[in-house]
Amino acid sequence: MIIVMNQGAADGAIERVVKEIERMGAQAHLSRGTFKTVIGAVGEEATLDQMHLSSLDGVEKVVPIMKPYKLASREFHEEDSIMEIGGGRVPKVKVGGPNALCIGGPCAVENEEMLNRIARHVQAAGATVLRGGVFKPRTSPYSFQGHGEPALKWMRACGDDLGMPICVEVMDTRQVEMMERYVDCFQIGARNMQNFDLLREVGKTRKAVLLKRGLAASVKDWLLSAEYVLSQGNRDVILCERGIKTFEDSVRYSMDITSVPVAKQWSHLPVIVDPSHAAGKRDFVGALALAGMGAGADGVIIEVHYCPSEALCDGPQALLPETFKALMGQLRLIAKVHGKEFAPAPVAAAV
Amino acid sequence: MIIVMNQGAADGAIERVVKEIERMGAQAHLSRGTFKTVIGAVGEEATLDQMHLSSLDGVEKVVPIMKPYKLASREFHEEDSIMEIGGGRVPKVKVGGPNALCIGGPCAVENEEMLNRIARHVQAAGATVLRGGVFKPRTSPYSFQGHGEPALKWMRACGDDLGMPICVEVMDTRQVEMMERYVDCFQIGARNMQNFDLLREVGKTRKAVLLKRGLAASVKDWLLSAEYVLSQGNRDVILCERGIKTFEDSVRYSMDITSVPVAKQWSHLPVIVDPSHAAGKRDFVGALALAGMGAGADGVIIEVHYCPSEALCDGPQALLPETFKALMGQLRLIAKVHGKEFAPAPVAAAV
Amino acid sequence: MIIVMNQGAADGAIERVVKEIERMGAQAHLSRGTFKTVIGAVGEEATLDQMHLSSLDGVEKVVPIMKPYKLASREFHEEDSIMEIGGGRVPKVKVGGPNALCIGGPCAVENEEMLNRIARHVQAAGATVLRGGVFKPRTSPYSFQGHGEPALKWMRACGDDLGMPICVEVMDTRQVEMMERYVDCFQIGARNMQNFDLLREVGKTRKAVLLKRGLAASVKDWLLSAEYVLSQGNRDVILCERGIKTFEDSVRYSMDITSVPVAKQWSHLPVIVDPSHAAGKRDFVGALALAGMGAGADGVIIEVHYCPSEALCDGPQALLPETFKALMGQLRLIAKVHGKEFAPAPVAAAV
Amino acid sequence: MIIVMNQGAADGAIERVVKEIERMGAQAHLSRGTFKTVIGAVGEEATLDQMHLSSLDGVEKVVPIMKPYKLASREFHEEDSIMEIGGGRVPKVKVGGPNALCIGGPCAVENEEMLNRIARHVQAAGATVLRGGVFKPRTSPYSFQGHGEPALKWMRACGDDLGMPICVEVMDTRQVEMMERYVDCFQIGARNMQNFDLLREVGKTRKAVLLKRGLAASVKDWLLSAEYVLSQGNRDVILCERGIKTFEDSVRYSMDITSVPVAKQWSHLPVIVDPSHAAGKRDFVGALALAGMGAGADGVIIEVHYCPSEALCDGPQALLPETFKALMGQLRLIAKVHGKEFAPAPVAAAV
Repeated sequence: MIIVMNQGAADGAIERVVKEIERMGAQAHLSRGTFKTVIGAVGEEATLDQMHLSSLDGVEKVVPIMKPYKLASREFHEEDSIMEIGGGRVPKVKVGGPNALCIGGPCAVENEEMLNRIARHVQAAGATVLRGGVFKPRTSPYSFQGHGEPALKWMRACGDDLGMPICVEVMDTRQVEMMERYVDCFQIGARNMQNFDLLREVGKTRKAVLLKRGLAASVKDWLLSAEYVLSQGNRDVILCERGIKTFEDSVRYSMDITSVPVAKQWSHLPVIVDPSHAAGKRDFVGALALAGMGAGADGVIIEVHYCPSEALCDGPQALLPETFKALMGQLRLIAKVHGKEFAPAPVAAAV
Repeated sequence: MIIVMNQGAADGAIERVVKEIERMGAQAHLSRGTFKTVIGAVGEEATLDQMHLSSLDGVEKVVPIMKPYKLASREFHEEDSIMEIGGGRVPKVKVGGPNALCIGGPCAVENEEMLNRIARHVQAAGATVLRGGVFKPRTSPYSFQGHGEPALKWMRACGDDLGMPICVEVMDTRQVEMMERYVDCFQIGARNMQNFDLLREVGKTRKAVLLKRGLAASVKDWLLSAEYVLSQGNRDVILCERGIKTFEDSVRYSMDITSVPVAKQWSHLPVIVDPSHAAGKRDFVGALALAGMGAGADGVIIEVHYCPSEALCDGPQALLPETFKALMGQLRLIAKVHGKEFAPAPVAAAV
Repeated sequence: MIIVMNQGAADGAIERVVKEIERMGAQAHLSRGTFKTVIGAVGEEATLDQMHLSSLDGVEKVVPIMKPYKLASREFHEEDSIMEIGGGRVPKVKVGGPNALCIGGPCAVENEEMLNRIARHVQAAGATVLRGGVFKPRTSPYSFQGHGEPALKWMRACGDDLGMPICVEVMDTRQVEMMERYVDCFQIGARNMQNFDLLREVGKTRKAVLLKRGLAASVKDWLLSAEYVLSQGNRDVILCERGIKTFEDSVRYSMDITSVPVAKQWSHLPVIVDPSHAAGKRDFVGALALAGMGAGADGVIIEVHYCPSEALCDGPQALLPETFKALMGQLRLIAKVHGKEFAPAPVAAAV
Repeated sequence: MIIVMNQGAADGAIERVVKEIERMGAQAHLSRGTFKTVIGAVGEEATLDQMHLSSLDGVEKVVPIMKPYKLASREFHEEDSIMEIGGGRVPKVKVGGPNALCIGGPCAVENEEMLNRIARHVQAAGATVLRGGVFKPRTSPYSFQGHGEPALKWMRACGDDLGMPICVEVMDTRQVEMMERYVDCFQIGARNMQNFDLLREVGKTRKAVLLKRGLAASVKDWLLSAEYVLSQGNRDVILCERGIKTFEDSVRYSMDITSVPVAKQWSHLPVIVDPSHAAGKRDFVGALALAGMGAGADGVIIEVHYCPSEALCDGPQALLPETFKALMGQLRLIAKVHGKEFAPAPVAAAV
């Protein structure tokens, strides 16, 4: 950690900082420049309290040298982590390293028949994990909020039937225990990325966690949220870029494509992209999915509906099954450029 | 609601939209321009499904005419709402209309002695509600997370002792019932502004709710979150601007000062500002508090610590008691410009 | 254009709006809802003054129906525009439609020898247009500002020698006439995207214009800036996405990848991406270039230096020649996914 | 300057950095931590090339210790700078330190009669400098672009007549010489804040410069742009905050109120606010002006029009003369809180 003192900081202030660094078990290296004094704190950075040092008199700024997360970092685990979703009644699906992942399904589970129909479509096109919301985080209290546990049962039955692991969003700590009995992968939505109690609870389960990036979260914040999950013992965290808030208003959110290579350089965790929620408009979903794989993502999560205009939620961004299928073909080509491969589509998928 | 069709939208597509509008119980007014057709849907806007209409073929965009929140809107309640925090063992403190509110206290409750000392300081300077965190939302899982229920008991005892209602952040739905026994006002933090289950739970209590604006939330989103609380029957929602994420990196968050007059024009709810969390640096807290009152805010929430360098959390932004007292004098002057008044400081405050 | 009146707007105010619409040569269609009145102005939207209508009493908002640019719009020119850079002493290079473009070269032209060396490298890898700055827009007045006209002569000689059209940034209206004698393509930098006098001046020339997107410019603003050039008679505008300012600080600018499909849907102009300036760090340039082509861009502009640590400007983002060459191979594969093709690399390039 | 090396950087890489630092005339101080090596470069920071050091192998990041601007910095000039606008035919008007400044007038000069009428209004209310645009930076090439030199003559005559210095926006280097004959203060618009040639040209004049902050410019960038002007010998630069681009869409730009105390801490230059362009809506102009003065600004620039609905430009944000007058009364009260005072309004202003 480096402590930059104000120009003209008093000797007493400098001494106080040095003492505090030593009290925390590190060594202080003083470097007096023409105008400013800089103090290097050498030792285990985790034991140094940046906030405390920032509060001391005469301190201009404190610059950390190490990353604030550990288990999520590339330094902790040099190789790409490869994770498995599923197992038991459904096959295990891999993501990370050379394994590209496609998660597909409806935004919200509206009824069992619709779910089964869409699931067959996405599987036929090559998706290997089924998504579907049963609790929906809606900006307005007057919008459809999801069917809850009954829809979860339909998801489970459908996944078992087709041999697809299921990924479902959890919104509340009180849902975790119940949901763990059904899902193969918990999804943490963008608005809950810093719901720290929820992160801890899914961290105590042994199901994979798909962690969407918050709308105002830096890549560092995102990895710190992953660290919350990892620090509870759950090592299967998949990062998901789904757009950030910017001034651009032609689409709902701006997919921050740079976060893909940045997160992959800083962390060993797989990173996938969610072009559907980023764009919010069907027209741009394909381009964003292809851009994500171009940037080196480990996969995609895409919303599909056979009749988007009847969807109860986010219809405007759902792809039609045939569009999704064509897109998968293009995604496979781009994945190859990075030495990644999606699971092959089933030979004779009955839709 | 207005539906703008694509240039060259087919007649069939236009007819479909008209039919759907009528099916939802509204009337459709067609307006064929030289290039584009525009359809006005006249009726109760709440019954119209914007998402569904957006999904239909040939629709370019859908423009809502009414605000998506109701109970929070100025149209629903023309006068400024005036709320009371406290009652029972502590006096009721008003906020809204001519009543300016000052909430003061430490960021986190570290121990009972420190809390009592700071509480006396802030009360002497003129704060009438005591704040103090017992569950702390920390970006890193390795930072101090708060003392929990024991700290809540200290807060309650301190508030009762000094006759100050207390305001404490709630982070998890599972904490609501327990906390309701202690607090006079729930605080919802920025990162939980769209934790919809939590909003609903505090909406079922009869304690005031201080709703901080999310870091990426528009004023509209913020009011929709207030609507979640209001729609459960709790009418005492106080909005709190605490900065948004922008590209500017000289401070942690950019206080969006415009949100104060905008929220007050759109809504009857009181709006206060939190200069401490916005700035993140003691040096700028005073200027932001004064700016907030200048913009017409109904009050401030400010962090104070007699020894910021020993604070376990957010020390760099805590004001010293004497700075806070001087600031209160300036805030009183600016409040008057808008016809507002803070409660007078106790005559003989024993600190 | 649609005019939404305030709830409770007086009849007189509504009449005034109607009169003004008619005075401007359009027809007014009134639609009185339960709460609000909406007025449609039907006619040539360009003749309607949105600002004026917004100023009238009782007007809540004015929603334009048509795009504010014309020559740049897809409605004006349905097919992808295909442009040519060069001609005369150097071959014409195409961009747009199936023609992918690669512009390569150093950030700044430091001396003739260095320029010639880098130019040979980029040509050998497959770039067909040479870039190189001679006037450099630098944030600090104390940084290297470019060599000016002498460097322009080196660029011209080098381009002629290798048969590569050259693309050079223009910063000031006073430079346009002189530069037109040398360059094949003017570059307008991000900070000058709304330097309207400069746009008009390059619009009067007959050289292609590479228009970088401003750091705070929406896609709409960007196309309006293109319209400035087009409206002067110059039809050869190439759009270039190079990142926008967001809160994310892991890289200098966030490449707004969504702007590629959005700009291509709204406009017929070619869109290329500049991963070098977006990332500001060599490590991420490749991923962003590939993402851009994945999103459907018509090409890339990339900085290359054989010894980045000796570059006078933006060294940290320059690719080494061998990295650039490998990247070109990957870019070719992704271009094909969209039915686009880069010009083939010269068979026996002597570097 | 501090150079942080990558974890595991080779000894050779570290030696190279040390050598380069020494070559640039500074001393290198090595500090080897458990994981990373940090190198402090002690000496005149201006002689160190941050870009170059960033380009070297094994370098993770370079952290500057000194501010990149000099003449604009508080370290260079500890006291608040006090400047004068005007002189010669019109009185000198002060800004900075205890002198609060109010600049008022129309957005664009539409005709001489309108200008004279508005000027009398703003003077009667207490404005001491007259603003009025003659070249208008308009997003669309089809909008009114200003009357040019004739309007400048009206401005000059009106200012002379009333004894008010005039402030007019300059957009192009070619206008500087001509305009210098008329104006008392050049305004540099937000979109030209990084038009470096223009900054240099006004820096060579001896007229005050009102430098608006760019829409995507950090406070640091803004001060670097001021440095461009100052470095040419012109010391009279007045900073003007006018809003930045954020995701919030309830108003055109978000006034970054924090920039006021930050710029004033970092720099000795006066800082005023432009609530009219920030808000873009009359309703919010007053609140933002008051917020600006609350934050400690040295003044305001406000648009006024006696008939906003007839304004050719930005009518929706112009205040009516009587609203402006009432606002001035409130601004005077808030200025006093910071020990500042506006010039008194003329006793018997004939409007």
